[in-house]
Amino acid sequence: MTNGGELRRRSTPEETARRVLEAAAAEFVERGYDGAVISDIARRAGVSSGAIYPRWPHKNDLMLAAIEHLLEQLRPERRIEELGLGDLTLPELFQMWGASLLTSDSVRDVLGQVFGSARSNAAIQQRLQHFLDEQADEFCRLVEQAKDEGSCSPEHETAALALLIHSIGIGTHLLLSGGLSDRYVPSEKGWVALLAHVINGLAPPTDPNH
Amino acid sequence: MTNGGELRRRSTPEETARRVLEAAAAEFVERGYDGAVISDIARRAGVSSGAIYPRWPHKNDLMLAAIEHLLEQLRPERRIEELGLGDLTLPELFQMWGASLLTSDSVRDVLGQVFGSARSNAAIQQRLQHFLDEQADEFCRLVEQAKDEGSCSPEHETAALALLIHSIGIGTHLLLSGGLSDRYVPSEKGWVALLAHVINGLAPPTDPNH
Repeated sequence: MTNGGELRRRSTPEETARRVLEAAAAEFVERGYDGAVISDIARRAGVSSGAIYPRWPHKNDLMLAAIEHLLEQLRPERRIEELGLGDLTLPELFQMWGASLLTSDSVRDVLGQVFGSARSNAAIQQRLQHFLDEQADEFCRLVEQAKDEGSCSPEHETAALALLIHSIGIGTHLLLSGGLSDRYVPSEKGWVALLAHVINGLAPPTDPNH
Repeated sequence: MTNGGELRRRSTPEETARRVLEAAAAEFVERGYDGAVISDIARRAGVSSGAIYPRWPHKNDLMLAAIEHLLEQLRPERRIEELGLGDLTLPELFQMWGASLLTSDSVRDVLGQVFGSARSNAAIQQRLQHFLDEQADEFCRLVEQAKDEGSCSPEHETAALALLIHSIGIGTHLLLSGGLSDRYVPSEKGWVALLAHVINGLAPPTDPNH
């Protein structure tokens, strides 16, 4: 019942703000935008409701900040950094990312909730658009880099390949969060082998005289 | 104001039911589950609210029937039949389907709305799961058929390939309904060429001596 109480006594305003955002994000994922309740968020963060209002006067302000906080954590560059994948080649990176699609439940719940809430809330819709565009931009950058490195043939349209990668990511998350039966979920081995086959097939044709 | 009035006088109960379901489906896509209003649905269908209640006593009954009606129209076999694509080879079929992903707005809106409403409504969630499983089953069947026909190598796990196709479909629809900027939407030519390249890369390796 005094959850966070000891921490609270020595928290800086930044720490408190971060704790409130994380509690709000968790409420959003569990209950959705409409179902989230400020007093529950305060309890979860171990602060009083009065500590929330000065910074986020309306529930709308707090929920949008929480969604921002969630989406920020989902950005591909950030995830790559956190997983320590910066030194891999792009085909290796793409395979690791593909494998993670079958397992990363938290992302799945966040995206399902954001897509759901965006239908009825213009501010969330705008934030979702911005997030999708940022991701698309990052995928385009990675495709261009793969072309420069020689692991992707320049014949493939960058936007087409970025959309393919992006749709596999979003689609897999939403299929699994939508409750696709286990019998239709492939083995990790079969899935990674297929993605590797597809990625390797994007490389420029090798010279048959070599 | 007498929209549908002439038709109404000679409608059979089946025709009336179909008109009500279509009006309810349109309301659902436009306003969502919570926003749909029975009297607006009745007006849209050109019937009185009293004509709706005997068959669907609660809004929940009508909305679930409307979602059922929408999802039924999205089933891949049905769409393939309607487009008259039954005689194409599977790789041709897959390319046509892929190209349609960039343009078929109505599907996109339906899916965005169903995924959104499923988060807060267990009956819709259950219906969505059933729909996703049916689609997965159909994709598995098509992949097996492609293996039998020799257009897909048996080395690829059927569930993996079905998930890849399924996620590209769901993902593309949701990215576009989520508002991805036009600058990240590929040309139809580039998109179809990439899908064709990926599909052709799934065929069994050809014997280099031929």
